[in-house]
Amino acid sequence: MDYEQVIAKIYEEVKPFWGQGKVADYIPALAEVNPRQYGIAVQTLKGDTYQVGDAGTRFSIQSISKVFTLAMVTRHLGDEIWKSVGREPSGNPFNSLVQLEHEQGIPRNPFINAGALVVTDRLISLYDRPKDAILEFVRGICGNDDIYYDKHIAQSEREHADRNLALAYFMKSFGNIKNDVETLVDVYCHQCAIAMNCIDLARAFLFLTDRGLNPYQQEQILTVSQAKRLGALMLTCGFYDESGDFAFRAGMPGKSGVGGGVVAYIPGNLSIAVWSPELNQHGNSLIGMETLERFTTDINNSIF
Amino acid sequence: MDYEQVIAKIYEEVKPFWGQGKVADYIPALAEVNPRQYGIAVQTLKGDTYQVGDAGTRFSIQSISKVFTLAMVTRHLGDEIWKSVGREPSGNPFNSLVQLEHEQGIPRNPFINAGALVVTDRLISLYDRPKDAILEFVRGICGNDDIYYDKHIAQSEREHADRNLALAYFMKSFGNIKNDVETLVDVYCHQCAIAMNCIDLARAFLFLTDRGLNPYQQEQILTVSQAKRLGALMLTCGFYDESGDFAFRAGMPGKSGVGGGVVAYIPGNLSIAVWSPELNQHGNSLIGMETLERFTTDINNSIF
Amino acid sequence: MDYEQVIAKIYEEVKPFWGQGKVADYIPALAEVNPRQYGIAVQTLKGDTYQVGDAGTRFSIQSISKVFTLAMVTRHLGDEIWKSVGREPSGNPFNSLVQLEHEQGIPRNPFINAGALVVTDRLISLYDRPKDAILEFVRGICGNDDIYYDKHIAQSEREHADRNLALAYFMKSFGNIKNDVETLVDVYCHQCAIAMNCIDLARAFLFLTDRGLNPYQQEQILTVSQAKRLGALMLTCGFYDESGDFAFRAGMPGKSGVGGGVVAYIPGNLSIAVWSPELNQHGNSLIGMETLERFTTDINNSIF
Amino acid sequence: MDYEQVIAKIYEEVKPFWGQGKVADYIPALAEVNPRQYGIAVQTLKGDTYQVGDAGTRFSIQSISKVFTLAMVTRHLGDEIWKSVGREPSGNPFNSLVQLEHEQGIPRNPFINAGALVVTDRLISLYDRPKDAILEFVRGICGNDDIYYDKHIAQSEREHADRNLALAYFMKSFGNIKNDVETLVDVYCHQCAIAMNCIDLARAFLFLTDRGLNPYQQEQILTVSQAKRLGALMLTCGFYDESGDFAFRAGMPGKSGVGGGVVAYIPGNLSIAVWSPELNQHGNSLIGMETLERFTTDINNSIF
Repeated sequence: MDYEQVIAKIYEEVKPFWGQGKVADYIPALAEVNPRQYGIAVQTLKGDTYQVGDAGTRFSIQSISKVFTLAMVTRHLGDEIWKSVGREPSGNPFNSLVQLEHEQGIPRNPFINAGALVVTDRLISLYDRPKDAILEFVRGICGNDDIYYDKHIAQSEREHADRNLALAYFMKSFGNIKNDVETLVDVYCHQCAIAMNCIDLARAFLFLTDRGLNPYQQEQILTVSQAKRLGALMLTCGFYDESGDFAFRAGMPGKSGVGGGVVAYIPGNLSIAVWSPELNQHGNSLIGMETLERFTTDINNSIF
Repeated sequence: MDYEQVIAKIYEEVKPFWGQGKVADYIPALAEVNPRQYGIAVQTLKGDTYQVGDAGTRFSIQSISKVFTLAMVTRHLGDEIWKSVGREPSGNPFNSLVQLEHEQGIPRNPFINAGALVVTDRLISLYDRPKDAILEFVRGICGNDDIYYDKHIAQSEREHADRNLALAYFMKSFGNIKNDVETLVDVYCHQCAIAMNCIDLARAFLFLTDRGLNPYQQEQILTVSQAKRLGALMLTCGFYDESGDFAFRAGMPGKSGVGGGVVAYIPGNLSIAVWSPELNQHGNSLIGMETLERFTTDINNSIF
Repeated sequence: MDYEQVIAKIYEEVKPFWGQGKVADYIPALAEVNPRQYGIAVQTLKGDTYQVGDAGTRFSIQSISKVFTLAMVTRHLGDEIWKSVGREPSGNPFNSLVQLEHEQGIPRNPFINAGALVVTDRLISLYDRPKDAILEFVRGICGNDDIYYDKHIAQSEREHADRNLALAYFMKSFGNIKNDVETLVDVYCHQCAIAMNCIDLARAFLFLTDRGLNPYQQEQILTVSQAKRLGALMLTCGFYDESGDFAFRAGMPGKSGVGGGVVAYIPGNLSIAVWSPELNQHGNSLIGMETLERFTTDINNSIF
Repeated sequence: MDYEQVIAKIYEEVKPFWGQGKVADYIPALAEVNPRQYGIAVQTLKGDTYQVGDAGTRFSIQSISKVFTLAMVTRHLGDEIWKSVGREPSGNPFNSLVQLEHEQGIPRNPFINAGALVVTDRLISLYDRPKDAILEFVRGICGNDDIYYDKHIAQSEREHADRNLALAYFMKSFGNIKNDVETLVDVYCHQCAIAMNCIDLARAFLFLTDRGLNPYQQEQILTVSQAKRLGALMLTCGFYDESGDFAFRAGMPGKSGVGGGVVAYIPGNLSIAVWSPELNQHGNSLIGMETLERFTTDINNSIF
């Protein structure tokens, strides 16, 4: 079977899972989404794109944006960032304050909310217009200039940002946030509200699949080592408290968002983005996780 | 450079790190070891063995044995074992009771002590003579019948097993230990006291490198899927609270023991064992971890 | 109203609460008890005894015994014991291991199981025949030689002591248990299995009500200061995670046991014991707690 | 000895402890205080005032203000407030977020910062001009109209309120803060910055000593039951993680502040305020705690 057939088959097999998960409701704007949507896009390093279902429908990428901001900051700061953020799985739900307190304001990793806030804080220090810079970066890596913030989602995020404000002030009390907290949370709410479709997202992970080289601009935006390390981080920490389980079942580095998107990739080979809004108990797309597990099984390939 | 040259170069570079770590002292018999020992062995799937330093000296494999018992139990019970043990990184030191209590006697993963005790408990239910069965399994996968328990170490372990007794009784109170606790701890203390050298250990991981096929007996002892999943577990949980960091820096699945041994492998390619008794703050061989990071850098290969 | 009338009135008011709680079932022998039993006994310093309901029926005193062993050890060791046990409320369920781990094997207070085990461990070091010594002490303070261990309960406790074995081995791993763990748990299971009735228990707390003076033997068994301090400990830690609430509602020092007994006292005035086997969510006698709150309200007296 | 002599004696005995503690430095304005100050004031219900040392010097009452706001809110809301705040000792440092997360935004008790923020939040809902209302209340209970906010301290508090902002936003995310967080933290910083001397403070606790009756306005501002319960709360929770120890050693309900003030009282008898800025490791005035322990010993009276 080729990729086209594989994803078509999985699409039919997994579609019946609709209704088993639950759309994110922590912000009203996300809760408005029609749950019965499901798309898959595969992008190979050779340049082929395969898609099925709602692969062309835009959705809110949410935490997937954490990979983009981390790549931007890593590019400028290198290992400097690891003085302020750890690299260990958290062993706790994604917005937990417990470990943060225990470790004196140093988040466990850059993919829990606390860690992503520190990364965005550093990004704000690096760019005069951070919101523009983020858009420009994302457009560059997916080769599509038509990427924007969903202002309605961003606004709704901002109105329900109490937990992130708490995290940011808490870390500021330890000296690990440098910029104004209100500004930080504004930028952070915007990055989560970037709207992309599965095809955009699969392409946006090509620079990681190709170990740092952005094929759309023929530019090495991360060193090979940096790209590999970002992959290791995704494998160990990319799916909140289900990271170990996802590595076990699917065997690929990847990242999910509460908007229902999941992206993963096999280095040197391909990237795949799946979207379906209903989440499982860990906050990851139920259909997305199931799809990826079947994908590596069916193509008989993973990183292990 | 070929592997021979790579490990010889690393050996010279890393040897000066002697004295920066600290030999395990939680049992007297381990504390007696001469700290200034260092060996590396590389075993390729093609059948070549490369070695440097004290690669032929035996040492206590300690927690590396957890991989062997898990393979034995997985082989018989398949996914059944995952009802009693989790698959997530622990986010806590390796003998922590906190998470165990929080999760009602279900250990986070099979590589923390609590999880390994559950695995050994199931193994005891499977075999009439579990200590013999473990030795036989290990001899089979490394192709060396001359593998034994170090009785002196096993005895010392047993005399200082209060923490493991506490863990076992605690899980028994939740119904997650089925056999007599004294028997369980005796078997567990023995498995930790298996004496092997780097060459044995590198070879013992070939069945994982070859995705389940034991080359010494031409037997598929795990399914491809089981072998890959064991690899994913090692990558996310194999190095206690330094697992994320090791994945980040070295990018290979592996397992360490407080005896100073570390084994890792690149699926489809090679396995490598390093031994040096001095441990870093996370309880992993300081020189071992450094060696493996340099190894994947120098051969320019990792799973990412 | 005199005390006779007060307890008769409360007895009628609170009896209808039968059925709202749940008899302890962590050991089979306790679960066998008929839940619909309820007795109250008041003992004044002047020498009067008042009773109602099943005040003459014996039951298993369970954790109330912790007060007796602590008094015995305090008498011999004085402040020495506080090097091994803390004096702070635990903020966690009574058999939690979390705090114990955090504080390196030093239990938060002598009324959580871990703390009581340390106290009994020290008692074993003090007496050649600790089980006889405990009985003798209890007989002496309640003026009744007819006090025994309930062997059936003790046996059942011992058979289900996994959690306490875990606690004891855990503390032994920190060096805070000095005697053989099996012996310790045997003595501990016996002290919990002392059978007394409400009248015995109310009398057994007279030495605390009278600030150290045992009226049955006219002997100052604790100094005034020691007796007062034991009272403070009961007020802050006597009712597991409901201690603050009980102090708030009833305003007396006291101690409960999962057998359904509760004893409390107003220094210089009287002691009161209540028994009813059904427990509330915190593990304290539901009817007992309600009775004591109404008692201090009705007699318009508390320590505040 | 009369009270005059007792406090004079203690003053001489304890003064040599200067230098053993450390002035609070979490806000710059508090760190400016001269550490070598020490005052004691005793106020009896009969109306006598005794003082020694710097009893007339004003200082920042800090957390002692939590008793005043709680009394104000209790007076209006009665038991309603206990739906939003618990009554159990925290078992954790005073500004911990761990337990707050575990208990879904309900602080353990009204004397940890989180709990006090909830109380002040409710007070803001009750009063149009909450800052004026607090001052008016405090003036009324100590019979002194010359009580003000120290604006310099209040300003410094506000500039270093990141931790309290984090706590407030965190609880708001659970729905347990009703008013604007910035406003809340402003009022809270002011209440902590009330400046009073030992004589004022001892008098301000007379309404609790007299079980709810404010002697300066002959008004029952709390019911007897409410006053007693506030006393029980102070005994179990008034001194952060040293509450159990203070109950054990001094045997009185009381409250401390990081400004170095401590107030305590014996119901129906007297209240006592001590001030000395150097704090012990638990954040309580080292000399204040020592003074109160000696006081109950020397007058041979406590609540137990």
